[in-house]
Amino acid sequence: MCGIVGVVGHPEASNLSYLGLYALQHRGQESAGIVSTDGDRLFKIRKKTLVVDAFTNDSFKFLKGSSAIGHVRYSTTGQNALKNVQPMIATGGFGNVAVAHNGNITNFRDLKQIMEDQGALFQSTADTEIILHLLAREPVSDLKDKISQTMAKLDGAFSLLFLTPNEMIAVRDPWGFRPLSLGRLENGGFAVASETCAFDLIGARFERDIEPGEILVIAHNGTLKSTRINRKASEAKCVFEHVYFSRPDSFVFGKSVYQSRKELGFQLAKEHPIKPDIVIPVPDSGVISAMGYAEAMNVPMQMGLIRNHYVGRTFIEPKQSIRGFGVKVKLNPVKSILEGKKVVIVDDSIVRGTTSQKIVKMVRDTGAKEIALLITSPPFLSPCVYGIDTPSKEELLASQFNVEQMREKIKADYLGFLSVEGMYKTLNFERSLFCDACFSGTYPTSVDLNSL
Amino acid sequence: MCGIVGVVGHPEASNLSYLGLYALQHRGQESAGIVSTDGDRLFKIRKKTLVVDAFTNDSFKFLKGSSAIGHVRYSTTGQNALKNVQPMIATGGFGNVAVAHNGNITNFRDLKQIMEDQGALFQSTADTEIILHLLAREPVSDLKDKISQTMAKLDGAFSLLFLTPNEMIAVRDPWGFRPLSLGRLENGGFAVASETCAFDLIGARFERDIEPGEILVIAHNGTLKSTRINRKASEAKCVFEHVYFSRPDSFVFGKSVYQSRKELGFQLAKEHPIKPDIVIPVPDSGVISAMGYAEAMNVPMQMGLIRNHYVGRTFIEPKQSIRGFGVKVKLNPVKSILEGKKVVIVDDSIVRGTTSQKIVKMVRDTGAKEIALLITSPPFLSPCVYGIDTPSKEELLASQFNVEQMREKIKADYLGFLSVEGMYKTLNFERSLFCDACFSGTYPTSVDLNSL
Amino acid sequence: MCGIVGVVGHPEASNLSYLGLYALQHRGQESAGIVSTDGDRLFKIRKKTLVVDAFTNDSFKFLKGSSAIGHVRYSTTGQNALKNVQPMIATGGFGNVAVAHNGNITNFRDLKQIMEDQGALFQSTADTEIILHLLAREPVSDLKDKISQTMAKLDGAFSLLFLTPNEMIAVRDPWGFRPLSLGRLENGGFAVASETCAFDLIGARFERDIEPGEILVIAHNGTLKSTRINRKASEAKCVFEHVYFSRPDSFVFGKSVYQSRKELGFQLAKEHPIKPDIVIPVPDSGVISAMGYAEAMNVPMQMGLIRNHYVGRTFIEPKQSIRGFGVKVKLNPVKSILEGKKVVIVDDSIVRGTTSQKIVKMVRDTGAKEIALLITSPPFLSPCVYGIDTPSKEELLASQFNVEQMREKIKADYLGFLSVEGMYKTLNFERSLFCDACFSGTYPTSVDLNSL
Amino acid sequence: MCGIVGVVGHPEASNLSYLGLYALQHRGQESAGIVSTDGDRLFKIRKKTLVVDAFTNDSFKFLKGSSAIGHVRYSTTGQNALKNVQPMIATGGFGNVAVAHNGNITNFRDLKQIMEDQGALFQSTADTEIILHLLAREPVSDLKDKISQTMAKLDGAFSLLFLTPNEMIAVRDPWGFRPLSLGRLENGGFAVASETCAFDLIGARFERDIEPGEILVIAHNGTLKSTRINRKASEAKCVFEHVYFSRPDSFVFGKSVYQSRKELGFQLAKEHPIKPDIVIPVPDSGVISAMGYAEAMNVPMQMGLIRNHYVGRTFIEPKQSIRGFGVKVKLNPVKSILEGKKVVIVDDSIVRGTTSQKIVKMVRDTGAKEIALLITSPPFLSPCVYGIDTPSKEELLASQFNVEQMREKIKADYLGFLSVEGMYKTLNFERSLFCDACFSGTYPTSVDLNSL
Repeated sequence: MCGIVGVVGHPEASNLSYLGLYALQHRGQESAGIVSTDGDRLFKIRKKTLVVDAFTNDSFKFLKGSSAIGHVRYSTTGQNALKNVQPMIATGGFGNVAVAHNGNITNFRDLKQIMEDQGALFQSTADTEIILHLLAREPVSDLKDKISQTMAKLDGAFSLLFLTPNEMIAVRDPWGFRPLSLGRLENGGFAVASETCAFDLIGARFERDIEPGEILVIAHNGTLKSTRINRKASEAKCVFEHVYFSRPDSFVFGKSVYQSRKELGFQLAKEHPIKPDIVIPVPDSGVISAMGYAEAMNVPMQMGLIRNHYVGRTFIEPKQSIRGFGVKVKLNPVKSILEGKKVVIVDDSIVRGTTSQKIVKMVRDTGAKEIALLITSPPFLSPCVYGIDTPSKEELLASQFNVEQMREKIKADYLGFLSVEGMYKTLNFERSLFCDACFSGTYPTSVDLNSL
Repeated sequence: MCGIVGVVGHPEASNLSYLGLYALQHRGQESAGIVSTDGDRLFKIRKKTLVVDAFTNDSFKFLKGSSAIGHVRYSTTGQNALKNVQPMIATGGFGNVAVAHNGNITNFRDLKQIMEDQGALFQSTADTEIILHLLAREPVSDLKDKISQTMAKLDGAFSLLFLTPNEMIAVRDPWGFRPLSLGRLENGGFAVASETCAFDLIGARFERDIEPGEILVIAHNGTLKSTRINRKASEAKCVFEHVYFSRPDSFVFGKSVYQSRKELGFQLAKEHPIKPDIVIPVPDSGVISAMGYAEAMNVPMQMGLIRNHYVGRTFIEPKQSIRGFGVKVKLNPVKSILEGKKVVIVDDSIVRGTTSQKIVKMVRDTGAKEIALLITSPPFLSPCVYGIDTPSKEELLASQFNVEQMREKIKADYLGFLSVEGMYKTLNFERSLFCDACFSGTYPTSVDLNSL
Repeated sequence: MCGIVGVVGHPEASNLSYLGLYALQHRGQESAGIVSTDGDRLFKIRKKTLVVDAFTNDSFKFLKGSSAIGHVRYSTTGQNALKNVQPMIATGGFGNVAVAHNGNITNFRDLKQIMEDQGALFQSTADTEIILHLLAREPVSDLKDKISQTMAKLDGAFSLLFLTPNEMIAVRDPWGFRPLSLGRLENGGFAVASETCAFDLIGARFERDIEPGEILVIAHNGTLKSTRINRKASEAKCVFEHVYFSRPDSFVFGKSVYQSRKELGFQLAKEHPIKPDIVIPVPDSGVISAMGYAEAMNVPMQMGLIRNHYVGRTFIEPKQSIRGFGVKVKLNPVKSILEGKKVVIVDDSIVRGTTSQKIVKMVRDTGAKEIALLITSPPFLSPCVYGIDTPSKEELLASQFNVEQMREKIKADYLGFLSVEGMYKTLNFERSLFCDACFSGTYPTSVDLNSL
Repeated sequence: MCGIVGVVGHPEASNLSYLGLYALQHRGQESAGIVSTDGDRLFKIRKKTLVVDAFTNDSFKFLKGSSAIGHVRYSTTGQNALKNVQPMIATGGFGNVAVAHNGNITNFRDLKQIMEDQGALFQSTADTEIILHLLAREPVSDLKDKISQTMAKLDGAFSLLFLTPNEMIAVRDPWGFRPLSLGRLENGGFAVASETCAFDLIGARFERDIEPGEILVIAHNGTLKSTRINRKASEAKCVFEHVYFSRPDSFVFGKSVYQSRKELGFQLAKEHPIKPDIVIPVPDSGVISAMGYAEAMNVPMQMGLIRNHYVGRTFIEPKQSIRGFGVKVKLNPVKSILEGKKVVIVDDSIVRGTTSQKIVKMVRDTGAKEIALLITSPPFLSPCVYGIDTPSKEELLASQFNVEQMREKIKADYLGFLSVEGMYKTLNFERSLFCDACFSGTYPTSVDLNSL
């Protein structure tokens, strides 16, 4: 999970990029970076911290120029060393180029081996650097052509923004795993972002999605030129963007995420029509689906769990540990709501199952009489290799146990998931155009799970 | 607005205090501080930042001992210089004492003048320092007696925690303006906090409120001794704690804040029975009341405004300003929800009116057809002098205009407030025991608004 | 040891103070601070670091105004906490006043006890704060009169600079222990500094010394008013300022320090006329005296020990320790110079003796055949209580052993000190006007060594 | 100018490297870095600051392992960005390798162009990175062989230390421009350093110089293997190391630098036998030569200029500038020494002439009657391209004017340089084995001054 943003043709490009990154903070909280250009040089600031802490007024004096790209990172490939923080810059025969990358390249190791044999030097352990090396070695001179040919060699997910002194280039992999949208600034300039919520904050109007396989060159003077990656692939958009990743106020793959969440709640009611006293969401991601479920079942929703908004912080727990600390630092149960009640808890997914177990225990300890846990997605069976940080297959609860066994582990009185079919039906999505490897185990590209 | 927390009799007192402060972060985001004692010396760390940024693992190695007090601050009296950050420590004939203060002393200036004439030196501009000077000059030797006599000279709001190498002393002013509760740790030690949500996180059990006028001495060996401030006053608890300040998962003045918020929504439905398409809260404070309103009116609630969780940060806005930036950095409207709808927005209060105006405009620009703004409290007429940072009377919208004029300013199609009577009735609160100076203009202590 | 500097009547007062402090860096390397005034408010920056690291360009934008005082500190009374760093500021009936103090008040504890009994609160553990408390309690209104009466109660060494929005006041104790000089800036403004080398750097002309017992009020408009502390005392200037503390390019107590050092070398030659192959100084303090000795004896001086200029830094030594590390990090012997030679080493003093022992060993290990250690002062018998950080009497080598015993400890072939009489004679100083308590054990004020 | 140090086979390798760098601080004050290895991974810390500020106790916990290399930098090629700070690390087919480089590669631009055409990516603008790229592309697998063949392609000065998880490799260019010495630690491990003064501090014994063209592989188990760069060249050691760069307590190119400086002073007396009242050095570099001159002429040397030890700091000068500030912040004249005297000032070189002019003016303003400036080297005619930061030919005073014209510019009463012949003769150096391009304009390698 990462978020990327780009701005072309605005006198305060780096400041707008920073605001865009702030809107995308939910996509990565480990580091933030911006590279800008004044048409001559590239300027870079990268920090291993939150967006609001990474930049000051002085940052924007330093990040000169009318074009910029930015990146927030949640590390997948490569440890979280500063050398792996993005955007990355390299200098080669093509001059200076910066790149920001959302996704994960699955044939990374093979490509790196080939490069090393040819004498390439690496500065980072990130898959993003391989893209720059491939570009440098592509025997054509035009950067756009280099990109077109390089991208054809990459397997996996990559929504990319390149920045040079002359242009910004937005690229989306042929499968279209991760979203990437084009917007128009009020002054006529362009913006590109992982999610449209970034446009709202900077006053940009959504124009269209960058298409799967598209290479869109936005010259600093504002001219657009669209070409395509020289590789055929069938679309495989990430359905989990709607279930969990994206912000509800974003418009992703042509649809409102808020709407999707609501519909998942409706479908949950169809598949698991329990009549509880109250429905409570696991905030924030479960709120809208819980509203849908409550509305469909005509039972009241209550905020039975209050969320502490700590955004990516680590807390220092006392050595003499506090019961349920890990979950309580994020969620606090409201006794007056839960006491003596038959409760439905709505959450988006179960990965390892440890958090679900803690939530159920905490809600029961607070006095709930009966607890059903309903999940707005199917069982999470297989790791994601396209840019989401998931544990190995063995650690995924659903890969080891059936639903009844999972219910026992989690100690809920009832456990219900959405069916894959129900999910697609309610979302009105054409299944063949989406990747649901995490639910189905079927990967759209060839993947060796052991080598990752 | 400030939050205070104290822990006595736990080997990790400073770590627990930090977690307590984190739970109270909503009460003050400008600075955070902890003072601990090992029975011999006092140890202090204070920072002008959020709780999570103010302390590290090393902090707790430095903050030795089994007793500690902490403070989060939102400045009222005294600028936000580090010298004004709390807890404060001073050394006098009584040895070393630290103090953490929530509230505002209204006869601060008179007392300071008297002290200065007697040769006192001041290190800060905060009202809290005057308490220490009064203590030092009180001609009795026992600290508890000093406190009893000193407190009788103070007008205004003060929930206080003192820490010495021997004991922690919790004090609540005779009017009981601000909450302060006593809890019991799992290991038998004691905790004191502004709100009970701090107890939940550190695994403490709520015991009882510190009473108005009470002085509770908690020796480091765990013995409790309760005495009283030598001054009579009728109770004047802050009703706004339930409307806005306290967290919904806290239990304040003997009642669940969540319950109060829900009831304010019910009452709002009685007083302003509009039938909109949807009800939307201004998150987070309006969410529960909006749920109450929606339930009472049997219309769907929607999260039409998505909140960015930025917790007390300042954002750098581009010079070439963005329309509605100030409000959009906190709230983003969801088009698919709002478009073409007749909307009720539920918020907790209108102070200057500028934010309300921006929210209404933003919701209308997003496509809402008709907008009613309903407020879960009466019009805010008079400044608070008891520890809440409010503008002067002239800047309070409700002090200058009637409801219809306010509606015009805010450009809503309808504007409704709760009545004072309705508020008390629905909360089932005895009005004579509460301060509602902000709604009524009647102050429980003598106050010269011009001198503040 | 501390250094103080003040500037009145210059548009860049804080910048000049910073340069003055830099020139006085040898007088204190633990902390640096400046307070300035614009005639209305006081501005303060204090850091626990070297002068060059403590201030930036932004510092001088913040430290507004045409008058300023500064301080470099080498802690004596009070631990090196930030609260003890100077200049200190306090607010009382007299308004805001800042103070910078060089010296040590010997009746500090008695005065503090009296203040505490009267209800005074202390923020620091430094003796300087007591001065502010005494001022605040003095029952006269004029600050100059307050100072005159307060200072009469203080025993010990104090060269002081006070700064208020209206004036700077320079004070020197009646004994005149520490130097303090008045200079004239090129633009007509005034400068005051511990040593005249500060004047050279800021382009000020030396005017005269502040006299023992003098109170010199320099109004921000440039008028001077001189009065006196209401206490008689016979002069007791610190002779060690010439032997070791002051910079050789300073003019202290009416005489060039360079000249004094040279003369100490001449006298050493008279009292210990050894004929070595080479004379080597312990740099930097021994260089000029060694030149004097070499010139008088007509033997070559060589830089046999090369100094690393680390200015007050602490070095991280490997756990598996390096032979002679502590002295080698400061001094490196030059083999080609020392090998096979009969050497005279010239140093300024022997305190604990450990450094001398290490130097002698290092020089011998490097190949010197015979080593005489000559000291440009008499044996250091008694601790200084007037502002120099010395160990207790028991730790002073000369208080425990006679010269021959010391020679054995230090393992030199010869050890020679200057006689007290020879020292005064060669310097042409009237002994009765100087303090030589460290050499004679006779203190000019009543002192209880056990209470310090 | 840079300094490098390496340690193999010591449990506190990084701590020793830090001490070695501290001893070499005079060779570069812009940045400091250390890379260590535990036989598996490389650990790196680099900072743009002084050695003492760059490392803490925690640094050495992080810089694990028994081998390490370090670097202090004074930038020549490449701006002083952090990306250019050394040691550099890269990963290629050969694994991880770190490199520290002292010197300057003169065919850098040509080599970089070739690499870029082949698709190489650059992370820095430093010439050092080119070495790593060449290594990676060399079609042999053994690192030692890669080095042997790569080095044969490099023109210019390079004393290098490579560090891999298995070994440290020390390399000196075939001309031997910069010094590099091998030492033995007390525990049997090895040290390599630019100057022997680094050995003294860490308790290492000087063994021998790394020879021009030598490649010395020191395995982490302590075995040494020496091979040679596959290129013939005649020796061209930098004579300026003895005149100015190296510390006097170092032993460089087989000779004591202290001895050389003294002899330069003797020769100066032969060539310019002036009889002044006093000889004063420009400290610190001129001190030893001045002693030599004074001894030879039998006139007294005096420290007429006192040096402020600021080590590579920038000072903030007031806008309303101070006369002679730039030179006074480093040097302060002693009036009592200079007044009315006929003075010889001894300095090491004249580059632009601006500093000499300021010193002469300052000494004259202080009261000197007659001033001769004697330089312990010949006129500096041509820029150094081998690692010393010199201005372009046009800016070198000696390239534009003859000695009499220079004397007029500098406003000295007499100006004298050493002759090239006299310099070599007194040093007893074989001219053909040294580079004196700066004095003669004859470069040992082919150089295009316009391309640098």
